[in-house]
Amino acid sequence: MNFTAQEIANITHGEVDGDPNVSVDNLSRIEEGIPGTLSFLANPKYTQYIYTTKASIVLVNKDFRPDHEIRATLVRVEDAYVAFATLLEYYNKISKARSGISSLAFISETAIIGKNVYIGEWAYIGKDVRIGDNTLVYPQVYIGDHTVVGGDTILYPGVRIYSENRIGNRCTLHSGAVIGSDGFGFAPQSDQHYVKVAQIGNVIIEDDVEIGANTTIDRATLGSTIIRRGAKLDNLIQVAHNVEIGENTVIAAQTGISGSSKLGRNCMIGGQVGIIGHLSIADDVKIAAQSGIGGTIRTKASVVQGSPAFDVARYRRSYIHFKNLPDLFRRLEQLENKLQELERRS
Amino acid sequence: MNFTAQEIANITHGEVDGDPNVSVDNLSRIEEGIPGTLSFLANPKYTQYIYTTKASIVLVNKDFRPDHEIRATLVRVEDAYVAFATLLEYYNKISKARSGISSLAFISETAIIGKNVYIGEWAYIGKDVRIGDNTLVYPQVYIGDHTVVGGDTILYPGVRIYSENRIGNRCTLHSGAVIGSDGFGFAPQSDQHYVKVAQIGNVIIEDDVEIGANTTIDRATLGSTIIRRGAKLDNLIQVAHNVEIGENTVIAAQTGISGSSKLGRNCMIGGQVGIIGHLSIADDVKIAAQSGIGGTIRTKASVVQGSPAFDVARYRRSYIHFKNLPDLFRRLEQLENKLQELERRS
Amino acid sequence: MNFTAQEIANITHGEVDGDPNVSVDNLSRIEEGIPGTLSFLANPKYTQYIYTTKASIVLVNKDFRPDHEIRATLVRVEDAYVAFATLLEYYNKISKARSGISSLAFISETAIIGKNVYIGEWAYIGKDVRIGDNTLVYPQVYIGDHTVVGGDTILYPGVRIYSENRIGNRCTLHSGAVIGSDGFGFAPQSDQHYVKVAQIGNVIIEDDVEIGANTTIDRATLGSTIIRRGAKLDNLIQVAHNVEIGENTVIAAQTGISGSSKLGRNCMIGGQVGIIGHLSIADDVKIAAQSGIGGTIRTKASVVQGSPAFDVARYRRSYIHFKNLPDLFRRLEQLENKLQELERRS
Repeated sequence: MNFTAQEIANITHGEVDGDPNVSVDNLSRIEEGIPGTLSFLANPKYTQYIYTTKASIVLVNKDFRPDHEIRATLVRVEDAYVAFATLLEYYNKISKARSGISSLAFISETAIIGKNVYIGEWAYIGKDVRIGDNTLVYPQVYIGDHTVVGGDTILYPGVRIYSENRIGNRCTLHSGAVIGSDGFGFAPQSDQHYVKVAQIGNVIIEDDVEIGANTTIDRATLGSTIIRRGAKLDNLIQVAHNVEIGENTVIAAQTGISGSSKLGRNCMIGGQVGIIGHLSIADDVKIAAQSGIGGTIRTKASVVQGSPAFDVARYRRSYIHFKNLPDLFRRLEQLENKLQELERRS
Repeated sequence: MNFTAQEIANITHGEVDGDPNVSVDNLSRIEEGIPGTLSFLANPKYTQYIYTTKASIVLVNKDFRPDHEIRATLVRVEDAYVAFATLLEYYNKISKARSGISSLAFISETAIIGKNVYIGEWAYIGKDVRIGDNTLVYPQVYIGDHTVVGGDTILYPGVRIYSENRIGNRCTLHSGAVIGSDGFGFAPQSDQHYVKVAQIGNVIIEDDVEIGANTTIDRATLGSTIIRRGAKLDNLIQVAHNVEIGENTVIAAQTGISGSSKLGRNCMIGGQVGIIGHLSIADDVKIAAQSGIGGTIRTKASVVQGSPAFDVARYRRSYIHFKNLPDLFRRLEQLENKLQELERRS
Repeated sequence: MNFTAQEIANITHGEVDGDPNVSVDNLSRIEEGIPGTLSFLANPKYTQYIYTTKASIVLVNKDFRPDHEIRATLVRVEDAYVAFATLLEYYNKISKARSGISSLAFISETAIIGKNVYIGEWAYIGKDVRIGDNTLVYPQVYIGDHTVVGGDTILYPGVRIYSENRIGNRCTLHSGAVIGSDGFGFAPQSDQHYVKVAQIGNVIIEDDVEIGANTTIDRATLGSTIIRRGAKLDNLIQVAHNVEIGENTVIAAQTGISGSSKLGRNCMIGGQVGIIGHLSIADDVKIAAQSGIGGTIRTKASVVQGSPAFDVARYRRSYIHFKNLPDLFRRLEQLENKLQELERRS
């Protein structure tokens, strides 16, 4: 990358405060800034570093008023963190730009490929697949028959999408993500072996969704497993058949959601959380890492912890007492002894 | 799909009660049934919906006696759930049917491929590999040297089987499953670095096993890691070296089993369970989700929970008291105060 | 494999005690030894079996003095376990030896490939990639632009390395491992949707590191996610952006480490452990399986358990009392009743 302060101001809708021609070719944290790099100041805790940083350009909130002199050129913007993110995204897009359809990909004759699509080597595009404009299909991706992928979407190397699924626009699926594998459904027989229940539904991923590396999303038995618009899933997450995840809900790595459960909007689910099947979780709920959800959560904006989980503040109080159980037990014994003594005497 | 009521009765060994010529081209849940769809009634809780469903055909148990008139054509069968599953499986088989060996797959000259095998694009079949009749090897699958895969087995895109392993008949391995990666064995040295212990055993997967997406099964150090006939493993499960999983044992997603542990038959293991190494678990044991198993379970049909796990009923009682620990603590303090008061007075 | 006792002694720097010409073509556990196999005796618990084993050759520590006659030929070495591991590694290397660059791999014209490198079918090697001598790149591996891979490293089928990462010498990456996927960073907007924070850092894996199957290591937002020399990571582990893992630290399967956390050297982290972001863990720390780490651990060689975790011995005492909470509660009630009785009387 190589940007002048003026170019950065143009991209971030900001104003230059200093030399507009100074340029940067790398990024740095404000406390570690070196010449030729761009940094940003968003968290007031880090304000001290703006006076000492050697970064050449620093993005700051437009209402920032320095107490001392500052060496760096400032670019004043509405929100320094968002501006920094915007700039990275801008750079990222340029550096990721790629196009062309490799002659070393397999593409079914009946697939319909949009404009400006990239399809890398050793990719497989099945029958009647449709891919929207500007989508990047990296090498070694698999897209099964009848699947539809929107536009401006990125499928990283080794993404596997089974047949008949739908992926929205502006989605990002990371390497090893599996979309549309069979739900885990088996009918127990009298002799204890199982007969597989065919899983003939699909997966629908709406627009602006991110799916982490090696995350697995099973197809519905009937109907659809649905990931709503704007949801963000981290790596190694398990989403079982017929689950629905609400808009803008964010889920950290290694969480698992069992069959037919329904998560609300704007939830924040920690890492390694387990959610039992056939329940629902209200909007705006927060679940602490490693919690286990064993029942429906009806109250909006609940914050819970534990396995099974309950109110986070109560969990933490209980856990402090848990740590002190040996002491509590000792005190109970003392009481018993004293009482025995009193009873003997009375 | 497109089936008449009579065709469904033929496939499921049932009897038509209503118009044998009515046809369906999709499936529905009984409570959401729409014309032209097939539904089923297995759970008595849903009986109310059979009188109002708009599904054209409903599979019911043969002893079902309606209280009111029913619009739908019924197909009476031995077990409505099993019949529905059978029908889905039947349809599934038809829709998945594929055959032919792609010229864009790499197949070693010494590999022996059965009759009616499908091998998709960009697959790799190593030296001396043997593949049984009717097996489907989807695109981008890897099968290492000397591995044997049975007949009627499905390997979905991106399955990786290292060399020298054995996969049975009628198995299904989902995308991203890794079979035969090295066991995690390292010998600590006096200077705290580790020397790898070579892992030269293999993995044996018997018949009728299902392995979920991105599940990993490590090869044995010596001998074999064994998944017995009929076992069903969900997604993202870790099976370490030299583990043995008993017949018809079912394991939910994200569970991990450490080295050399031996699970009995017909066990049901919940999601995110952790099982320590070198222990054994009796037949018919049930383990609640997120539990940690730290020792051998000798009693058949035990049901356990917790980390470390113990009897599930006792766990639940203890957990209720855990939630009430602040209250218990307060009561203890009151007792101490009262007793002090009594002692002072006496 | 086929080795005589003399050859084994040569490879392991040991001495033959018995017939130097007896040969073995397989391995066995000492308690299950059969003729024609090699076994070893390292754990004194197994000493009894050396008198009855049918293994043809047994590796023993050089100071081992038998009480009775032994049928097997012994090879006396410094450390029988290490010698056995050395021998397996030796055999392993021979059996894994492969070389040549497949004409069915895609290799960018600007990639620089070392001597004696193996590149398998359907692999993808991007622009300006550099690969060191003797490295094995199995079929279906993906190496993104500008990534550097050292010498004597093994990348198993389906490993995905995004662009701009660095992998050291003598590393082993198992199938499905994903290196350099985006860190999970999103800036929340006022209307509750998220804007992605571009992740433009990378991953650095130093020498002698092992990465398990389907483990995911995210690239840094800025700077690098770092796995230090000699660290060993098992399967299905999540390492988030900007994490640093110290030298010779060993991590068991399904553990997750959140963003920017820093683990010391020589730590042993159990399976399914969760570590919160932005904390640090001292050297030599041990963390029990399924624990949750919610804060920095400053004390070297701490051993902790629980979620959140604290001292392991205290955790275990507390957990015993947790199991007995119903009893403790009952005793508290008795005390309350007795005290009430006493108060009434006094």
